[in-house]
Amino acid sequence: MYENMIVIDRDAPESLQKQIRRQLAIGIVNRQYPVHRPLPSIRQLSTELSVSVTTVALAYEALKQDGFVQARDRSGFYVNPDALTDPGHTLKRDALGDVAVPGSGIDYRRFFSGRSFNLERVVKPSDCLVRYRYPFVCGLIDPSFFPITSWRECVRDSVNVVEVANWATDYSAIDDEMLIEQLIQRVLAKRGIVAHPDEVLVTVGGQQAIYLAVKLLLSAGDTIGVEDPGYPDVINMARIEGIDVLRLPVDREGLVISGDMGHCQCLFVTPSHQFPTTVTMPLDRKRELLEFTKKSGQFVIEDDYEADISFNMTPPPALKSLDRWGNVIYAGGLSKSLLQGLRMGYLVADREFIREARALRHHMLRHPPVNNQRCVALFLQRGYFDRYVAMLTKIYKQRCDVMHESLERHFPGASEKPEYGGAIVWLRLPEEADAGLLRELVEPEGVFFETGGFTFADERNNRNHLRLGYSVIDKSFIPEGIGRIANALPKALVRR
Amino acid sequence: MYENMIVIDRDAPESLQKQIRRQLAIGIVNRQYPVHRPLPSIRQLSTELSVSVTTVALAYEALKQDGFVQARDRSGFYVNPDALTDPGHTLKRDALGDVAVPGSGIDYRRFFSGRSFNLERVVKPSDCLVRYRYPFVCGLIDPSFFPITSWRECVRDSVNVVEVANWATDYSAIDDEMLIEQLIQRVLAKRGIVAHPDEVLVTVGGQQAIYLAVKLLLSAGDTIGVEDPGYPDVINMARIEGIDVLRLPVDREGLVISGDMGHCQCLFVTPSHQFPTTVTMPLDRKRELLEFTKKSGQFVIEDDYEADISFNMTPPPALKSLDRWGNVIYAGGLSKSLLQGLRMGYLVADREFIREARALRHHMLRHPPVNNQRCVALFLQRGYFDRYVAMLTKIYKQRCDVMHESLERHFPGASEKPEYGGAIVWLRLPEEADAGLLRELVEPEGVFFETGGFTFADERNNRNHLRLGYSVIDKSFIPEGIGRIANALPKALVRR
Repeated sequence: MYENMIVIDRDAPESLQKQIRRQLAIGIVNRQYPVHRPLPSIRQLSTELSVSVTTVALAYEALKQDGFVQARDRSGFYVNPDALTDPGHTLKRDALGDVAVPGSGIDYRRFFSGRSFNLERVVKPSDCLVRYRYPFVCGLIDPSFFPITSWRECVRDSVNVVEVANWATDYSAIDDEMLIEQLIQRVLAKRGIVAHPDEVLVTVGGQQAIYLAVKLLLSAGDTIGVEDPGYPDVINMARIEGIDVLRLPVDREGLVISGDMGHCQCLFVTPSHQFPTTVTMPLDRKRELLEFTKKSGQFVIEDDYEADISFNMTPPPALKSLDRWGNVIYAGGLSKSLLQGLRMGYLVADREFIREARALRHHMLRHPPVNNQRCVALFLQRGYFDRYVAMLTKIYKQRCDVMHESLERHFPGASEKPEYGGAIVWLRLPEEADAGLLRELVEPEGVFFETGGFTFADERNNRNHLRLGYSVIDKSFIPEGIGRIANALPKALVRR
Repeated sequence: MYENMIVIDRDAPESLQKQIRRQLAIGIVNRQYPVHRPLPSIRQLSTELSVSVTTVALAYEALKQDGFVQARDRSGFYVNPDALTDPGHTLKRDALGDVAVPGSGIDYRRFFSGRSFNLERVVKPSDCLVRYRYPFVCGLIDPSFFPITSWRECVRDSVNVVEVANWATDYSAIDDEMLIEQLIQRVLAKRGIVAHPDEVLVTVGGQQAIYLAVKLLLSAGDTIGVEDPGYPDVINMARIEGIDVLRLPVDREGLVISGDMGHCQCLFVTPSHQFPTTVTMPLDRKRELLEFTKKSGQFVIEDDYEADISFNMTPPPALKSLDRWGNVIYAGGLSKSLLQGLRMGYLVADREFIREARALRHHMLRHPPVNNQRCVALFLQRGYFDRYVAMLTKIYKQRCDVMHESLERHFPGASEKPEYGGAIVWLRLPEEADAGLLRELVEPEGVFFETGGFTFADERNNRNHLRLGYSVIDKSFIPEGIGRIANALPKALVRR
């Protein structure tokens, strides 16, 4: 019965006693042996494994010493419950002594050298809501606004006999029909986009939508145009895929249309709400961009970042909504409002393009979880999403006003109110300022913000930029937070 | 107010009247105009858009003719509710008349030529549970066995104020701690694998675990060794990434260890339960495989397919559990039991490897949905998963016995009982048989199965193989289903 759990290798350098001891210890820690029943007896193991009784007895004695087993009179050895507290615990693992740590023999660093995917990226502090009094963190949502009751209702109604029966479908080939319908009616329509169901693909967040588009449109050696400053993750994606990046200048109206763009097979743009400057591209320039790319036969990936949080009744339409030729691939997601943790994204493009994207998605992960698709569909259909977004928008708009006021007081002219909406302000400090240094200075005072230099090709000469998110900071804390940043600024000026 | 919703382009070939008409129609279909309030008046639009009153009046008249608007005396034009029935509907879309279909100008087929990702893959018929009386379909689970009540309890307990507060964390950098702990204790331990929390990465299904491993371990021009017959999706992944594939022979003990393996940078193997033959590699050969790959400095991706459904009290241990050097990258998932729709997978490897995989995962999609992570964690922790898998295993074992009996009666010696477990039998018909033809013959009789030829490098000469799944067919229907296949066989023999 235990022959498969304990495997004896007579050619191994390790002694038989240690082999048994080690494997029993692993089994115990992994709860493979019931706690209330005796472990295999010495005689039993000795017979099954064809080793001497002494060998097994010595192994058990060592396990007793190490605290893995307890001896009980007449009934043999039992698992020591203390050994089970936390199998993942480092101390426990170290107590296993002889267990070779997998990987100890391989220099992964050497193996991966030159093509590490562990590229610089923004990781938000996991405890920022409790750690900072003034968390100007970007891209997180205040969980206390989330309509838990409505969401639970949708969860409940999406997990029943009828719905679960649908899960036994191969969702590689089709997405949840109700979700697609709701995305078209309630989400894409607001961006001025008309789409057929077969022109929409559900993705694991907006990030996957972008990744699929990049991978479909470009091969190694091709060039993608990315705004400067722009979204660092797309530059990392390009690097991962061996795609060259050409940085394209941005002014107060977003991406500057220039002949340089012609050197790219594809452009990655954030026209309605530029990342990270938040400026909105005027309609004329959007048309000019479409005209240019159509003439040069280029594709455009439009990342409609933070699109659901718009301060205007009629937000500036998405580039995709003006696309009559079909060269705009639209990537979006509900993650900036519907809690980023759910990872609900979508790709909108010509059906033939979507067919390819679906095939690529299949090979990468088959499909996004189907239970969440139906739950979000209900959340949209019942109007909970619209109501929730309306509430968030109202709160953000108030906070944005306070932000603007505070920033104008302390840093006049250094920032612009985000025209589109969203929950982030872009701040340009005097050139001598170092935002990284500034952050270190204000961190002990409970202030957190994101530096902006890493969004530029020339990070070194743009250390004076920073991003201030206001999605998780209460409006009453904003003036003091901005004040603390302003107070610390003089100490964060460095000579260039 | 409407200037952003209706955009006039005076240089466009399209008349002003048609531009207004088209954009109003899109807005109406997309519900951008409230149903119970009048649409913008002719005079209002004329002023805001700086076009003549006649132009707007003609546009409205055409919209009335097309059924988009209704005229009401004295209060102007209103949305016609009939136009709103289904915005995604083809007829409605066609009714928009002048709307250029995006993509109509681009020959995507030409654009993608030579690197289409739309590779041949198995897509299960979406209605197989209702369409076939004898659905020998593979990889689906009978939803009627799913413990909905327990699952709903876990959903309820994972969506509350405290839990939702955790969602506002950046889950790119960490996975749900409880899920990792449960995977280590309840899932990996059963496979003999000891892992630290930082040696496990949560993925969107087992497929993503495999994809991440392939992408991390191999570059374009490298060679991956894949069993023959073997898993077609991994061959497609390699093709997508420009990786060469060397097919490696399989015998009744799984992958044959041969010098040819040395030509590969990496091997993809299914040792415990070979895909598709279901044979289990004996312990000695597993050791031999580890010895060979260690000597040649190769990595091995172990796909522990269907691992949770094992017919043995102590299933044969995973290759990873025997790995003392760290060159085995383990990919698994709960999708074969916990309903495939949830897409819960994991990758187990050295922590340095996991760090890279996490970075790559971030760029591809940031992280798997966090709500499902916690819900599955609770489902595991409360023992519901173990209980559910035990029930499934019992049912599958009974069905497997009936399968084996029926197959031995009609096709003696042509199949082997899956030693490990799972829910699929591999059947080798006489060489002259064509499984594709056979399937066509039995389909009208309500029988569905998967052909097996596509899992071979030489598909043409292996058309006599097929896969019979028994996860969704009731045991009482099995004999008749197998009987119908046997009856049709004589008509499916072709001369080679």
